[in-house]
Amino acid sequence: MTFYRQSDVPEILELSWILSSSCAKGLMNRAHAYKAAVDANMEKEDVDPDQGINMGLFGYPVLMAADILMFNATHVPVGRDQIQHIEMARDIAGTFNHRYKPLFTEPEALVDDNTPLLTGLDGRKMSKSYNNVIPLFGEFNSQADPEKMMRKAIMRIVTNSQLPEEPKDPDASAIFEIYKAFATPEEIANLRAQYESGIGWGDAKEQLFQQINNEIAPFRARYQELMANPKELEEILQMGADKARRHSRKQLDKARRAIGIRPLAKLK
Amino acid sequence: MTFYRQSDVPEILELSWILSSSCAKGLMNRAHAYKAAVDANMEKEDVDPDQGINMGLFGYPVLMAADILMFNATHVPVGRDQIQHIEMARDIAGTFNHRYKPLFTEPEALVDDNTPLLTGLDGRKMSKSYNNVIPLFGEFNSQADPEKMMRKAIMRIVTNSQLPEEPKDPDASAIFEIYKAFATPEEIANLRAQYESGIGWGDAKEQLFQQINNEIAPFRARYQELMANPKELEEILQMGADKARRHSRKQLDKARRAIGIRPLAKLK
Repeated sequence: MTFYRQSDVPEILELSWILSSSCAKGLMNRAHAYKAAVDANMEKEDVDPDQGINMGLFGYPVLMAADILMFNATHVPVGRDQIQHIEMARDIAGTFNHRYKPLFTEPEALVDDNTPLLTGLDGRKMSKSYNNVIPLFGEFNSQADPEKMMRKAIMRIVTNSQLPEEPKDPDASAIFEIYKAFATPEEIANLRAQYESGIGWGDAKEQLFQQINNEIAPFRARYQELMANPKELEEILQMGADKARRHSRKQLDKARRAIGIRPLAKLK
Repeated sequence: MTFYRQSDVPEILELSWILSSSCAKGLMNRAHAYKAAVDANMEKEDVDPDQGINMGLFGYPVLMAADILMFNATHVPVGRDQIQHIEMARDIAGTFNHRYKPLFTEPEALVDDNTPLLTGLDGRKMSKSYNNVIPLFGEFNSQADPEKMMRKAIMRIVTNSQLPEEPKDPDASAIFEIYKAFATPEEIANLRAQYESGIGWGDAKEQLFQQINNEIAPFRARYQELMANPKELEEILQMGADKARRHSRKQLDKARRAIGIRPLAKLK
């Protein structure tokens, strides 16, 4: 297992440029993220469909392909919404391989069908872009107590206005849905019974908080330990970057030679 | 004066990616080369407007901006058809400077109004893409005698079917137009007089060949000398690349810091 920071491996950006010439613009036109941004613009009046969209966003799938193809990944674990990126990487690899030299493995998406999609604090799909996630590890560079922050977020989960003693439908409750992702079958059955016989929302949230916190606490402690030692982290990342760059230079050199970049003569 | 080969300075590609996030996609939609390719597709039936267009072509103006902005060029000598690229580089620089930090000089296009646009062998605008140019230095890696190649090309210049003794309009003749770019005012006046009193097309082409060849011969000799010593050339390019990279690393580091790429801690 190697950890590295993408920006420590500039070879990826060079490969990204090389691959851009093996990537049809039409492929990018069909990227979900780009199309969603265009659709949002089309709903407004008198707005250019490409308003606010920069070339970084438009060409991002090529960079992601470079991330994957640089290391000849065979399988890439992704969420369902990322499958398209893997298909694009396959397409770009196929074009390059066919046109120049078979250098790149066509990767396959690994999607775990059992990974639940969780509902966010506000009832929409949980997503960083919606700012409706449960902060498990606190906030980077923040002084706030991460446990308290998490508790506060969970208490903000939107519920209906049923009274505590009313029986509740667990399968219509975001609290129950999230709880299931952290609990054993017995714990789930137990909370389900409480819902059916009547449980206050505050009580249910408190149980959810305890459940997540018990599981997360040791990871959080390790996280805080690491974050208190940025030098150690940076060393791990630099060791990873060294390894990633050693491999990347070889792969990039092959790609450069394949497209015809070579010196006029060997020196020394 | 520093000569370097773009592919020897990978920092340019990294800067190109960084700048792509300061470049509106809409700007690229309006690039002449891209629009010309789309227009050509639109003339065909049942063809996607982006058919055959890859991301390298579409994003090329960003790479060109990186070429210019990396070295904080103040003035860029270009042909009229390249002015748009300089304007795009200004636009991209302005966006980055405003959003992050004023790092990049907004370049100005230097266009020489006296540079004539020449007619090609086939009567269209002279252009490498039309394959209608006069080969001054022969062909790279070819055994053919470059002087003979040039003579043959000039003899192919399209003319009308006027007889040798007929008076001819010099200002409607591609031969005369090209001759003017290589001759003194006296020589031009002399050929003009020959046109008006009647000159055979073969004779006019022969004079054009001699005129160009007299001027080009010493440069051609130097070109062949250099091409026979690829090691010397490569050394010149590597010296240039070293100098270009020393500068580029500094400029790139500033750009990276400006957008927030930095290590978690200083090591050593």
